[in-house]
Amino acid sequence: MADFTFYTVAMSRGQIARWALHEAGADYDQVVFDWATRPDSFKQINPMNKVPTLVHHHGDHDHVVTEAAAICHYLAETHPDAGLLPDAHEKASYFRWLFFAAGPLEQAVVAKAMDWEVPEERRGMAGFGSLDLTLDACADWLENNDYAAGSRFTMADVYFGSQFIWGLRFGSIPERPGFKSYVDRLSAREKYQDALAVDQKLIEEAAEGQ
Amino acid sequence: MADFTFYTVAMSRGQIARWALHEAGADYDQVVFDWATRPDSFKQINPMNKVPTLVHHHGDHDHVVTEAAAICHYLAETHPDAGLLPDAHEKASYFRWLFFAAGPLEQAVVAKAMDWEVPEERRGMAGFGSLDLTLDACADWLENNDYAAGSRFTMADVYFGSQFIWGLRFGSIPERPGFKSYVDRLSAREKYQDALAVDQKLIEEAAEGQ
Repeated sequence: MADFTFYTVAMSRGQIARWALHEAGADYDQVVFDWATRPDSFKQINPMNKVPTLVHHHGDHDHVVTEAAAICHYLAETHPDAGLLPDAHEKASYFRWLFFAAGPLEQAVVAKAMDWEVPEERRGMAGFGSLDLTLDACADWLENNDYAAGSRFTMADVYFGSQFIWGLRFGSIPERPGFKSYVDRLSAREKYQDALAVDQKLIEEAAEGQ
Repeated sequence: MADFTFYTVAMSRGQIARWALHEAGADYDQVVFDWATRPDSFKQINPMNKVPTLVHHHGDHDHVVTEAAAICHYLAETHPDAGLLPDAHEKASYFRWLFFAAGPLEQAVVAKAMDWEVPEERRGMAGFGSLDLTLDACADWLENNDYAAGSRFTMADVYFGSQFIWGLRFGSIPERPGFKSYVDRLSAREKYQDALAVDQKLIEEAAEGQ
């Protein structure tokens, strides 16, 4: 048995977790679902019934990790030799942008897609404010730094960067100069392309089987 | 100068970060704003213009940490002797629930408060699904575990637990047996009470000054 079992759907945010698995060089088996069918037993692993979900077979224990950002960081921690963790001076920005992407940015992108607007008087309650405000904060960072943690690629870029890769592709995030060059840097990575190829092959096979 | 400068508003999620500062035993100075007034210069520290914001004066560098969950975890990492970091077998749950609270749970609570509903056909796009679904997942965990990472208090509880402390207090999260006892365990902590007392004193002083 491999060290990890990776539950995913090929055309989903599972692609983010797969990229993380490849960057870490993790030893993993996969269980691929399609959107429509998922065995009821999966809810015992993740009661949210969501992918990606990662199970780490760790000695006598099976540890479940859910949430794409948590999966990314967990893989960085369990594969320290892959060099994806931040050093002491990169940590602040690493965690700042990892949580920014999982929190306010994700919230702002979803709210925009759903046509939800925060009334002005309730801005304090919704921490993301608006999509423009969150994107301004990211642009401010990416104009001065090549990566989430500073000058070097770390695991934070897999999750933070995926927001921009997906956002520019689907139009949910408007293009800005800093975003496009960041996406170009990330998508040129061999491990990104390797991971994407696995999911693209699964998507093609599923289409042929229909 | 203290190691950290903590920018906050007394009656805000800054209380979560202050609790984390006290659990870590961090050496910090504070800059307290009120909701209405905040100097424009603060945007140079956090372009989101939000509190809590933490600045770590680290050797010759000033590192900015934003996002309450990131601040909590950063303080655990920079104060390893406080014993708030997860061990190898606690890591999966620690990061799972930390990111769950910062992502789906936060999104679901805000969506409920704003009266936003995810149309059934777009459930896949909004990862939180519904408040009930996210709370079911938390209840499932808290019925079988005393804390976010398992049987022991870690820094993940400061953030994950604060969702329940605030949620039950303001009615944004409905009471369930596992939630109330979790909140009771957390709010009995001396460091929680110490931190809360600082903000309550600030709130009282502000009220007297008006």
